[in-house]
Amino acid sequence: MIGERLERQMGFIFELERLKTVYRQNGTLGGKRQENSAEHSWHVSVMAFLLAEYCPEGVDVFRVLKMLLLHDVVEIYAGDTFLYDQQGREDAKLAEAAAADRVFSLLPEDQGSDFRALWEEFERRDTQEALYAAVLDNLQPILNHYFTNNQNIAGKRLLRSQIIEKKRFIAEFSPELWEFAERIIDESVARGLFQPG
Amino acid sequence: MIGERLERQMGFIFELERLKTVYRQNGTLGGKRQENSAEHSWHVSVMAFLLAEYCPEGVDVFRVLKMLLLHDVVEIYAGDTFLYDQQGREDAKLAEAAAADRVFSLLPEDQGSDFRALWEEFERRDTQEALYAAVLDNLQPILNHYFTNNQNIAGKRLLRSQIIEKKRFIAEFSPELWEFAERIIDESVARGLFQPG
Repeated sequence: MIGERLERQMGFIFELERLKTVYRQNGTLGGKRQENSAEHSWHVSVMAFLLAEYCPEGVDVFRVLKMLLLHDVVEIYAGDTFLYDQQGREDAKLAEAAAADRVFSLLPEDQGSDFRALWEEFERRDTQEALYAAVLDNLQPILNHYFTNNQNIAGKRLLRSQIIEKKRFIAEFSPELWEFAERIIDESVARGLFQPG
Repeated sequence: MIGERLERQMGFIFELERLKTVYRQNGTLGGKRQENSAEHSWHVSVMAFLLAEYCPEGVDVFRVLKMLLLHDVVEIYAGDTFLYDQQGREDAKLAEAAAADRVFSLLPEDQGSDFRALWEEFERRDTQEALYAAVLDNLQPILNHYFTNNQNIAGKRLLRSQIIEKKRFIAEFSPELWEFAERIIDESVARGLFQPG
């Protein structure tokens, strides 16, 4: 006899399948399809324990991992919004809060409320864990855009200064990671993947 | 001045991009493309902390997460081998060991050796952490096959008894998870996604 608790947990696990068909502006190698939010979430999660030494001491990397593995699940219902679409990002806030109600309520109550709290912390960026998660979430697309040589028009129209403005908070968290990011942004401009200026 | 350590770490992070184009026999919703090993790794990782209560006490879920996030990176060079291809699985062992040499040597030595040890532990299944990781790695494809209503021919030709033989070790780890898995296998047979018998 399968209990209601496990049924709900499995219902959530089934629903996660949908994140694999939420496509981002980023690309994949070979250029045949866009990157989706599930594989992006995997990529930033590996980065989280690989780059942990660039964090201030005491950051709970296990909690960062849970946060990153869950940070995009609201997109199952709300879709992905391009970071540089200012109006879209604002409209998305409400849709994402409604999506959070919906997706986390699939779970047993205790887990739904824990997971939602992790997601809200990520959105607020008001702990070292959330800030580190945001750093990785903002660093990975720069690396991906460069390495996949992404020919997506939306990405190619971006100005170097727009990228720098959105991403420069990385410098306060880790000057080393930011130095690397800036180099990759400049090399991307040189390749025509972003506009100079 | 970016140090050699960070250069190597970033070299590994770039290389991870390749796992997003390693496709499995499993599908995705809508049936337009197969599932890749990066998004599979994300899915099992969320399952790892969501289902932790079905583990024996004392299992280190943080270590399980790192193991699952890394468990398929050898496929970057060795490709994915279908679980039910017995000869292929044996040939793959050597290719995967060579791939592990190659991929983990991209990293700074200490991290390369830590990550390789985690991968080897996963392969050996000789700790509770590795066993739990193997349970999730074997459970997720059953759930995915059913929920995506996967019409892939290789999957559809499998006999119920073949699945049960490969997956029944789940029962020893968690009778509850196995009961759920068996129900999904039976419902998949009823839908024609596996052969009866």
